[in-house]
Amino acid sequence: MSEEGGFLHFVEHQTPNTWVMHRVRRVLYSGATRYQRVELLDTYDFGVCLILDGKLQSSAADEWIYHEALVHPAMLTHPHPRRVAIIGGGEGATAREVLKHGCVEEVVMVDIDREVVELAKRKLRFMHRGALSHPKLSLAFMDGRRFLEEARQSFDVIIVDVTDPLAGGPSYLLFTKEFYDLALKKLGEEGVLATQATSTTYSIACFASIAKTMASSFPIARAYRAWVPSYASEWGFVVGSKHHDPAALSVKTVAKRLRERSVKELKFYRARLHRQLFTHPKHLERALKERGRLIRDGQPIYMPA
Amino acid sequence: MSEEGGFLHFVEHQTPNTWVMHRVRRVLYSGATRYQRVELLDTYDFGVCLILDGKLQSSAADEWIYHEALVHPAMLTHPHPRRVAIIGGGEGATAREVLKHGCVEEVVMVDIDREVVELAKRKLRFMHRGALSHPKLSLAFMDGRRFLEEARQSFDVIIVDVTDPLAGGPSYLLFTKEFYDLALKKLGEEGVLATQATSTTYSIACFASIAKTMASSFPIARAYRAWVPSYASEWGFVVGSKHHDPAALSVKTVAKRLRERSVKELKFYRARLHRQLFTHPKHLERALKERGRLIRDGQPIYMPA
Amino acid sequence: MSEEGGFLHFVEHQTPNTWVMHRVRRVLYSGATRYQRVELLDTYDFGVCLILDGKLQSSAADEWIYHEALVHPAMLTHPHPRRVAIIGGGEGATAREVLKHGCVEEVVMVDIDREVVELAKRKLRFMHRGALSHPKLSLAFMDGRRFLEEARQSFDVIIVDVTDPLAGGPSYLLFTKEFYDLALKKLGEEGVLATQATSTTYSIACFASIAKTMASSFPIARAYRAWVPSYASEWGFVVGSKHHDPAALSVKTVAKRLRERSVKELKFYRARLHRQLFTHPKHLERALKERGRLIRDGQPIYMPA
Amino acid sequence: MSEEGGFLHFVEHQTPNTWVMHRVRRVLYSGATRYQRVELLDTYDFGVCLILDGKLQSSAADEWIYHEALVHPAMLTHPHPRRVAIIGGGEGATAREVLKHGCVEEVVMVDIDREVVELAKRKLRFMHRGALSHPKLSLAFMDGRRFLEEARQSFDVIIVDVTDPLAGGPSYLLFTKEFYDLALKKLGEEGVLATQATSTTYSIACFASIAKTMASSFPIARAYRAWVPSYASEWGFVVGSKHHDPAALSVKTVAKRLRERSVKELKFYRARLHRQLFTHPKHLERALKERGRLIRDGQPIYMPA
Repeated sequence: MSEEGGFLHFVEHQTPNTWVMHRVRRVLYSGATRYQRVELLDTYDFGVCLILDGKLQSSAADEWIYHEALVHPAMLTHPHPRRVAIIGGGEGATAREVLKHGCVEEVVMVDIDREVVELAKRKLRFMHRGALSHPKLSLAFMDGRRFLEEARQSFDVIIVDVTDPLAGGPSYLLFTKEFYDLALKKLGEEGVLATQATSTTYSIACFASIAKTMASSFPIARAYRAWVPSYASEWGFVVGSKHHDPAALSVKTVAKRLRERSVKELKFYRARLHRQLFTHPKHLERALKERGRLIRDGQPIYMPA
Repeated sequence: MSEEGGFLHFVEHQTPNTWVMHRVRRVLYSGATRYQRVELLDTYDFGVCLILDGKLQSSAADEWIYHEALVHPAMLTHPHPRRVAIIGGGEGATAREVLKHGCVEEVVMVDIDREVVELAKRKLRFMHRGALSHPKLSLAFMDGRRFLEEARQSFDVIIVDVTDPLAGGPSYLLFTKEFYDLALKKLGEEGVLATQATSTTYSIACFASIAKTMASSFPIARAYRAWVPSYASEWGFVVGSKHHDPAALSVKTVAKRLRERSVKELKFYRARLHRQLFTHPKHLERALKERGRLIRDGQPIYMPA
Repeated sequence: MSEEGGFLHFVEHQTPNTWVMHRVRRVLYSGATRYQRVELLDTYDFGVCLILDGKLQSSAADEWIYHEALVHPAMLTHPHPRRVAIIGGGEGATAREVLKHGCVEEVVMVDIDREVVELAKRKLRFMHRGALSHPKLSLAFMDGRRFLEEARQSFDVIIVDVTDPLAGGPSYLLFTKEFYDLALKKLGEEGVLATQATSTTYSIACFASIAKTMASSFPIARAYRAWVPSYASEWGFVVGSKHHDPAALSVKTVAKRLRERSVKELKFYRARLHRQLFTHPKHLERALKERGRLIRDGQPIYMPA
Repeated sequence: MSEEGGFLHFVEHQTPNTWVMHRVRRVLYSGATRYQRVELLDTYDFGVCLILDGKLQSSAADEWIYHEALVHPAMLTHPHPRRVAIIGGGEGATAREVLKHGCVEEVVMVDIDREVVELAKRKLRFMHRGALSHPKLSLAFMDGRRFLEEARQSFDVIIVDVTDPLAGGPSYLLFTKEFYDLALKKLGEEGVLATQATSTTYSIACFASIAKTMASSFPIARAYRAWVPSYASEWGFVVGSKHHDPAALSVKTVAKRLRERSVKELKFYRARLHRQLFTHPKHLERALKERGRLIRDGQPIYMPA
């Protein structure tokens, strides 16, 4: 057959009225864990994709854009991050990026879903590249929020790499003011937290709300963004900081820190890009100001919004 | 997730311009044998479907329509079928129907693809219902045509249950005059052969050609049809007979034979339906006459046509 | 551009989980009347299609299957139909078929939507072929039920050619016992009524309910069916009769009447097909018996069901 | 009907394996000019869209991102643009942006397709906002290249706002070195040319080739990019300049020029964004260097590539 399995399509809804269809070459895995559905699909254009509950999380073709964008702005804002916590991050690519910083001594990765991490270990080596078994990494399988509540030590950087806030999903309580207040307490003096913050287009109110909520907890909070092709959208992130302004780092400082920490094999991030990430078109700047609301445990926000 | 995996769609092309999309609940199996791609997809509307090279072969919801329509008209045309050959029939449902006729003593099922049959044994019990391990059944894994060439004994009924004739596929040489001439030689005096004959709509020239080609080999050849929902088309069949006219069987004769042979658990076929299957609308009658051509090994026909 | 407009797809949902996609060559008309949305789409496989509220009503490629199947069994059941009422039938093809019967003296066509009929007059000549301006035809634009209530004369045949019973749509009260009781009163002694009765597959409960409801009003009611490719389903019809059994007409009688009435240019229907239409597979026969319920004004039925 | 026409989908292929489906509320226009197919589709998520040959050109929801990104970087690079030529630009939105610069005295817009411009005048007022009838604007309907060949006067800025380079399409010869050499000759001493340069993702080789080809003709050529949601991709642009480096303009200079020229109603572009547009992620920077080739009339490039 000339189509080689191209009769299966993975359809992702950006909204109820705009869909993206990916032709699938092969289904590598299809199952369900205690928490979510899990698929590994080999697509024609984006290679192997990890799909959780029907949403594309990471594609072989461009997961490094998302993961580098999520990790490095926060890591470089902190002058010497030693202890890092990753909330979520099942495929191990966030850990991979964190561990590129030579100064890091300890990474704790807390994912609620042990089965996803086990699957990633076996089948997504090209994503984690061994990070999931790195001697500096320890894994905990539990709710990220409970982990922080119970954590005795503080962290220099916390990276929130969880699925989108969906009603009924496992992640929506990791985007609330209560969560950010908790995280703030667990961060050291120069502590920094970065989170994915959904689409800058299809869930702009959600993005703006996360930025606004972070700003209500953190002394400094900056929204930034990057185009991630497999998400078919520009993607939003927010970094909160107790002391240093992420958007004010000079090219020189970033370059120096990258060098000192021997950060290697970057494909997306670079010193000259750092500030660019935080500079937005007029309409996005305005949306960040005018849209969005405080997200609370009792008033959570769900995508799409 | 409320959609429970409904983000995967199985898309079948009736033509390059008309497609049917089936939402998929789960992928139960996805792989490739030496001969073809194989998928077991659990669809929302048709339940578990066997897909070979991207074409739906059998769905839990209505495989019995196709298999009863393929098997019983031929079996009832023969007054006392004892030895039956099935060419293809991997999922075992054709064997299941054949074995319902108490008079049958021996069934040889010849499928080119051992892996599909093994998979069906393990995962499609609700289709074969044990027929693949029935004491009267013997399995051979080889090309159906070579099997007939080498067969020493003759058969009362031959059922051709193979994939559509696709360029490059494993089946197109099982729809040619050379094949029917060979089959004719291997049939007993009252011998009957039935074959699936593709869509009566989207490949009407193909259907008409198979009917015409059968008619060039067999003393009597009759085209018939049944609506198979999961194929999203009325489906064509042709039965060739050396002696008895399948379209002339009376309701009484059919009923009597069904009773004598203790044929049970029919869901689609019944005595009163028999003749109806052979009566066509005017346009189809005309198409069967005017369209179609002799199919030869050197001039095969491929769907869609 | 090689695709010639093929970037537009008309998507019809058989169910929420099974869709048919038709590539569209050109949009000939797109608008809305007081009652419904109306589109004329030139599709690649089925030619020009009339779409009402997103549902394909008639395609150039096969509207004659639907219209011949709807009209002729009823017309031939009546020994000498002179006055015929058509409820619905906007594109004029039902009138075209009715007018083929030379014995017909008067046809009243009652469509709620004048704009659709005007559009058909101008743009669908290949469907109505002049029937909408035929001297024997009179047009009324009003609700079909009110028309019958107010009708002073009786009819020999009533053809109900309306859109599917959809919640909120204009047709669902034309499928209830109250409607059939009313129609019965307006039919002459040998009167016959035929109605489309939705899909035999995707709305089997609806089909069975229409049959059951007709049977509760008419002395004789017979369900029948035909494969209509552009509907991607076998389609159901029911004919109710005050005196003559439609399913009992002999081939000879049908042939004689067709001849006497000079019925010409049939493409689907023929004498030998008549009885076949009423003979069903076992599962459909059973569904007609076991499924379905009485449809009442106060308990209407909606597709899909 | 609750879906209000949502049964029509506009499907755009990013590649043969990745498609975007837009549900369509209404088809406002569907036809063909001498040069191309033209559709005006009212989509649910992006409002009214102009579609040429099946490719989305401009959506009500975000055409201003594309048009502001195309026009202002070039206009602000030139210290005092008086005469501007627009090649293409049928919907009039590029003219609208150009005319926002108070210093502009004369705009010539050259579109090959008079019918598209006439249609835009009538039906896309919310896009051109009167620009197509602005006293400073003159319209010419001819091939853009021939226009430049025959132009007697020189221009300060040329904006190339044409459809993607598709084999057989009307635009592919407006992306070649021969075209850029010609344009260079028709530009004044401080002249600047900006062109759309296709997707930075799905046609990266095309984008890089346009950048490389511009760089072979212009003393200075800079590639830039912006996320355009309705294109479902980040989009590329290239600006070529004879004297001033577009990427080196300071925020201050941009702000001053915007003020002096009374540029109003910007929704996307702003002074602080200017430099950001030219700063790229590492992989894009590398792709611009390593991929791409010289495009010549005899060796044109076509999307997707």
